[in-house]
Amino acid sequence: MALIVQKYGGTSVGTVEKIKTVAEKVKRFQANGDQVIVVVSAMSGETNRLLGLAAEVDETSPSPREMDVLVTTGEQVTIALLSMALHKIGVDARSYTGSQVRILTDHSHMKARIKRIDDERIRKDLDAGRVVVVAGFQGVDTDGNITTLGRGGSDTTAVALAAALKADECQIYTDVDGVYTTDPRVEPKARKLDRITFEEMLEMASLGSKVLQIRSVEFAGKYNVPLRVLSSFEEGEGTLITFEDTGVEQAKISGIAFSRDEAKLTIKGVPDEPGVAYKILGPIADANIEVDMIVQNISKDGTTDFTFTVHRNDYERAAAILTELTSTLGGEEIDGDDKIVKVSLVGVGMRSHAGIASTMFETLAREGINIRLISTSEIKVSVVVDEKYLELAVRSLHEAFNLAQDEVATVG
Amino acid sequence: MALIVQKYGGTSVGTVEKIKTVAEKVKRFQANGDQVIVVVSAMSGETNRLLGLAAEVDETSPSPREMDVLVTTGEQVTIALLSMALHKIGVDARSYTGSQVRILTDHSHMKARIKRIDDERIRKDLDAGRVVVVAGFQGVDTDGNITTLGRGGSDTTAVALAAALKADECQIYTDVDGVYTTDPRVEPKARKLDRITFEEMLEMASLGSKVLQIRSVEFAGKYNVPLRVLSSFEEGEGTLITFEDTGVEQAKISGIAFSRDEAKLTIKGVPDEPGVAYKILGPIADANIEVDMIVQNISKDGTTDFTFTVHRNDYERAAAILTELTSTLGGEEIDGDDKIVKVSLVGVGMRSHAGIASTMFETLAREGINIRLISTSEIKVSVVVDEKYLELAVRSLHEAFNLAQDEVATVG
Repeated sequence: MALIVQKYGGTSVGTVEKIKTVAEKVKRFQANGDQVIVVVSAMSGETNRLLGLAAEVDETSPSPREMDVLVTTGEQVTIALLSMALHKIGVDARSYTGSQVRILTDHSHMKARIKRIDDERIRKDLDAGRVVVVAGFQGVDTDGNITTLGRGGSDTTAVALAAALKADECQIYTDVDGVYTTDPRVEPKARKLDRITFEEMLEMASLGSKVLQIRSVEFAGKYNVPLRVLSSFEEGEGTLITFEDTGVEQAKISGIAFSRDEAKLTIKGVPDEPGVAYKILGPIADANIEVDMIVQNISKDGTTDFTFTVHRNDYERAAAILTELTSTLGGEEIDGDDKIVKVSLVGVGMRSHAGIASTMFETLAREGINIRLISTSEIKVSVVVDEKYLELAVRSLHEAFNLAQDEVATVG
Repeated sequence: MALIVQKYGGTSVGTVEKIKTVAEKVKRFQANGDQVIVVVSAMSGETNRLLGLAAEVDETSPSPREMDVLVTTGEQVTIALLSMALHKIGVDARSYTGSQVRILTDHSHMKARIKRIDDERIRKDLDAGRVVVVAGFQGVDTDGNITTLGRGGSDTTAVALAAALKADECQIYTDVDGVYTTDPRVEPKARKLDRITFEEMLEMASLGSKVLQIRSVEFAGKYNVPLRVLSSFEEGEGTLITFEDTGVEQAKISGIAFSRDEAKLTIKGVPDEPGVAYKILGPIADANIEVDMIVQNISKDGTTDFTFTVHRNDYERAAAILTELTSTLGGEEIDGDDKIVKVSLVGVGMRSHAGIASTMFETLAREGINIRLISTSEIKVSVVVDEKYLELAVRSLHEAFNLAQDEVATVG
């Protein structure tokens, strides 16, 4: 008998029919002898409907506390309907809001962090043979105020419950059937991975793969919760997110992530002296602009070129800040481009295999793709290239690293 | 400085625009120096939408516990939106669900009774100058399960809060501007009452006047909460529901209530012996049919005629039960009529003024209206007449008792 936490997102519970399908799936696990906790999101469209109502009342600055009261009704509707659907097919079930569990968080409305989970009521229900249905995304602070966990919070709820109850597996059901070597819409030969390590999954998530929210992956890694991504609508084993010591020899590369909405900015000829990076990036951070890659070239004649990337939406604002800075910093010129993308190779195999980066650069050069920026970490290499080369870059790298083949074949 | 509890029903908060109108009204009271607690229902249509979803999942017997989880989201949406609307116009406000207040109830899902209200958080907010916005209709049991109070529960929430906090007045805002001498759709000369006693209001409610739910009136009477019915959309003082010792001399009659959906059944010639009433009404009650008026004529030759009224929807079922009973009871014949209505005079003045009933009977006789059944209590006289006479009966009685005149003129 295993204890399994399952999470179903908004599209998986988007209609009453789909909720009934989820109930049947849950029933099969229970019939199999498993104890099941189900975490659900709001029915797709519901959260947007609620946000629309709030915008009608106050489109500029609705109270975060009341926003949380409002949007948490979305998951509350789903837990009730799913519990009814389970009863209807003979499965004893009981629903819990975040407050009822209770999932205790800090006081930060709309972006709260989980501090503790009371598992007493859930354990009692499981022991009594019940399926427990929990509202994702929501919690309660020590003063009894309703809080929400921010984007992707239902994944976090599922992982946190799995950690608190020491579940055997946390299954995230979504509209894709697992984690792929890259986005199949860009490279049709993309292959579903049976396994991927937490570190790789973290890099994939932070580099633009939207299968899992990065916070839930971090959380799962921190608390050693085995995580599996599966399809709500198809059968299959999905992708298991594992710890490195699984004994399976790793492929060099697990996947190729990319992110389209990038822009880069360069301030040329700034004095190469201590504190210059802070002087440039301080004002950018003050304007709440998130910086991704940062590259500083070597000094030449006492000046240097300083480059960084931002989200494309922030490009104009960042450029304006830099222009203002040149007067005080003495930079020569601002150079920018908002038609760029980032393509990244991810794989724990890089640690033990040399030459990954040079194979990457060679492949891109052969295709005539100019590399504009490079940034590396222990298990990834990211390059910035012109937007028009995105598909070509992804496909040629997918081919060069044999990602369409079975993993075993590429271990080398 | 007064402490006022205000309750706004579903149509009063049916759109975002109406919610903003409510916020403005609340602001005026606060600006006036009053402390205000606002109780709201779900936006009109929302509860039916939720019930529709539940019916799609399980139309026969959805879990009452989960029904409560589901439908309470309706009021939760309203409290959040109203609090935002108050913030938007500069009024500090804070919302509370029934669980958050907390409004402690028994364990009866979908028809829970309030046992206790924790007023600590509300008092703190009021003292801090905040408007407190509470979700009507909902509570929580000692195990933390969400409960609802059943039909008209938001009125009950308002009255219970007013009682717990010893409010100066509980104001029920609705789509009518007060309690009328009778339904203005039947008698256009119907006059709004400035005051009515609790006992009269109770009789009016139980006799078919739908302005207030009977449970909230009972509750207000029991806990001495001054209750006022007003219009959400128009200005005005509404109708104050008072205790009898207000010093105002009472009119003989306050109003005329009526109920259209009646049916009567008579079982003729049953043996007039102890226990016969129970033998007839026991099986009716077992079938969950509610009986209203009960009349037993005097005995003749050792048998009697036994008559009672039921809701028109239950007529066929009740008739079938009676028919079956005649074989064991030895009744001669079943007689029934589902084209009847009940018309009632209500007024505490009856206690001290004789002749009310005879004036009523005389008036109806003059109009050629045959009385089929009569039932009286200390402050009301009800008659059953043929359906076709309803309007004529109401108007002629309204005229005979001078109800269109100011109260002062009719005292005497």
